[in-house]
Amino acid sequence: MKLDFGKQGGLIPAIVQDWRTGEVLMVAYLNEEAFRLTRATGRMHYFSRSRQRIWMKGETSGHVQDVKEVLVDCDEDALLFKVEQVGGAACHTGYRTCFFRRLDADGGLTHVAGERVFDPERVYGT
Amino acid sequence: MKLDFGKQGGLIPAIVQDWRTGEVLMVAYLNEEAFRLTRATGRMHYFSRSRQRIWMKGETSGHVQDVKEVLVDCDEDALLFKVEQVGGAACHTGYRTCFFRRLDADGGLTHVAGERVFDPERVYGT
Repeated sequence: MKLDFGKQGGLIPAIVQDWRTGEVLMVAYLNEEAFRLTRATGRMHYFSRSRQRIWMKGETSGHVQDVKEVLVDCDEDALLFKVEQVGGAACHTGYRTCFFRRLDADGGLTHVAGERVFDPERVYGT
Repeated sequence: MKLDFGKQGGLIPAIVQDWRTGEVLMVAYLNEEAFRLTRATGRMHYFSRSRQRIWMKGETSGHVQDVKEVLVDCDEDALLFKVEQVGGAACHTGYRTCFFRRLDADGGLTHVAGERVFDPERVYGT
């Protein structure tokens, strides 16, 4: 198995799913070093395209993601991580999942992921 | 809501999940036209990076994906589609999901998605 980091300039997309409920929590990108760190530590590390650096999920908030299972897709250019989301919320907005809004037929958005688990101002500062 | 197609040269990643079981079936990319077609028809359309064209999932195999729910992420640069996978298999290899292999701690791969649902040679020809 040789992951194909070439299709997106050194990055592969990672889908992150709650290992118990199956809820999709977020999608983010890994470069080879983030993948190596994730495998070595058992905690999700990503590559931030905006900040151009590796970050460990939860490094500021404490809301780390412990890897329970890693799945590889048919083309070996995408990964699916099943994780335990410490603190109960994956999204920097404080919601459980980044996918907290449904796109309705009329183009409107409806909140579907319950209340905020944490207040982002308290966690990340203002 | 304005989807951000700019981060990846006109494409946004779409996570596709079985609407009943929550199983992640595949990840693929949509451009604005594929998104418009998906919304207009209720069936998944993607943009193929290798073929540089829009395709409707199932156009050859008949294994279309009927959209049940669309979720938008916090940054409006990724989508999560909950679908009914007609024919029961999303992967071109004939498996239920593209993520049919687990990456083990020793780097080996284990098949975890059951038997093939269809024979790709019969569906796509040789």
